Amino acid sequence: MKIKEKKNRTAAWFSELRDRICASFEAIEHELGTTDNGTAPGRFERTDWSRSSEDGEDSGGGVMSVMRGRVFEKVGVNVSVVHGTFSPEFRSQIPGTKEDPAFWAAGISLVAHMCSPLIPAVHMNTRFIVTTKHWFGGGTDMTPFYPEPEDAAEFHGALQATCDAFNPRYYEDFKKQCDDYFYLPHRGEPRGIGGIFFDYHDTSDWETDFAFIRAVGETVGEIYPRIVRRRMTEHWTPDQREHQLIRRGRYVEFNLLHDRGTQFGLKTGGNAEAILMSMPPVAKWP
Amino acid sequence: MKIKEKKNRTAAWFSELRDRICASFEAIEHELGTTDNGTAPGRFERTDWSRSSEDGEDSGGGVMSVMRGRVFEKVGVNVSVVHGTFSPEFRSQIPGTKEDPAFWAAGISLVAHMCSPLIPAVHMNTRFIVTTKHWFGGGTDMTPFYPEPEDAAEFHGALQATCDAFNPRYYEDFKKQCDDYFYLPHRGEPRGIGGIFFDYHDTSDWETDFAFIRAVGETVGEIYPRIVRRRMTEHWTPDQREHQLIRRGRYVEFNLLHDRGTQFGLKTGGNAEAILMSMPPVAKWP
Repeated sequence: MKIKEKKNRTAAWFSELRDRICASFEAIEHELGTTDNGTAPGRFERTDWSRSSEDGEDSGGGVMSVMRGRVFEKVGVNVSVVHGTFSPEFRSQIPGTKEDPAFWAAGISLVAHMCSPLIPAVHMNTRFIVTTKHWFGGGTDMTPFYPEPEDAAEFHGALQATCDAFNPRYYEDFKKQCDDYFYLPHRGEPRGIGGIFFDYHDTSDWETDFAFIRAVGETVGEIYPRIVRRRMTEHWTPDQREHQLIRRGRYVEFNLLHDRGTQFGLKTGGNAEAILMSMPPVAKWP
Repeated sequence: MKIKEKKNRTAAWFSELRDRICASFEAIEHELGTTDNGTAPGRFERTDWSRSSEDGEDSGGGVMSVMRGRVFEKVGVNVSVVHGTFSPEFRSQIPGTKEDPAFWAAGISLVAHMCSPLIPAVHMNTRFIVTTKHWFGGGTDMTPFYPEPEDAAEFHGALQATCDAFNPRYYEDFKKQCDDYFYLPHRGEPRGIGGIFFDYHDTSDWETDFAFIRAVGETVGEIYPRIVRRRMTEHWTPDQREHQLIRRGRYVEFNLLHDRGTQFGLKTGGNAEAILMSMPPVAKWP
């Protein structure tokens, strides 16, 4: 298959997954029924953004979809297709850029911060990167404020089943990478309960690798709504909300101090609003 | 003068300045009088922290003073006296550590986040660092949410007068360093209205350099209470408060993405609670 077709198919998939996830989250907003204070169900709002290189040439862009609702306090789903050339600073760090610094990248990124402190925040990102080499990367993890064994087991179990369908070694490997990555060394704390994380994923069977990437997105799109529906009508206390806002502070610390995607995006002139869409709507350091 | 005496005098000064600033801020809390909702004046609470090196040896510590009040929403004043050896990663970056990686450092750090969006947040830090060389560093800057020409002029004017008393070139130089430093490149925005910022300050007249450092601290200790008193009883709206919380999000972005002190502190195993005392009590990314 030509690289052009791979680019087209991955970019189309990321948009399709975005549409499915947005539709499913909007359905949840409707299901809540009438609320005490009469708030209306949230709807996603889309904003296009484009990126131009230093010499002013078109270098792609993306679409940011954000919903502020009554179940989803703030959820962002960003899809992007960008291209350009890596600056010397990054060249040595990225496979296949030594001979030619040109790159192409498409991806989807999802972060959901929920009104209820009883519902975990979720993060999912999958991407396809092309230099003179090409590979997939991404992962998903959950940050519960009140970890429920049932939710955690369902999330980890679904990811394991998805991984096992492709390779019996994936889950253990990708789970460990996730635990290692989503860790705040300055606090000595994990960000949440983990999930899976992988990068430079290229088994040289592109079709199967792409199927795996689709399966990861579909798994999150199925399992997270199930967890949300289980918890969305449970009563929470102001103390629990306060705890959630403090733990969101830790989420901010991770994203700004440690997250490679955030640092990479901001340093390469990415769209700050789209990159920082992952920030929680409100956070506390009391 | 022996280096030991310089260490003793600077460490004693930072504690004395802390005591003066805390007393003056507590006085403001009392002056507010009776509030509608009967909140009591804030009081500083002190917490000692100590630092131990990897081999478990004592390597100094500090005292964190935090007040949560009705004028000062959250204000932290941290003094510290720490010592140790720089890791190879930092050695090349710090003067006088090539031959001997040992360091000693004392300093004071102040960050005030105010209840009223009409009162600027303020930051001040001064420090004395000793390796085989020794120097002062620090600065102060203000982050108004509704910049008032009167407040800005008073702040800048006082700093200029303080600088001019020592060297007519200081103000222009240190103001520029401040503007360059407190800037968010990913947003294309300054953090606030600036102030002064300097590092590796050593004119080889230690006594005068130390007098300058004391003058910077005293200036902030005089000028900021004056600005607070002018604004503390002015009425503000919920929209203004919302704007303040969003701008505080930018403050968080600066501190975690760009602030060298924060990054340095967290990477060298500093006390995370003390370093992140600068975080606002609540911030928004709506």
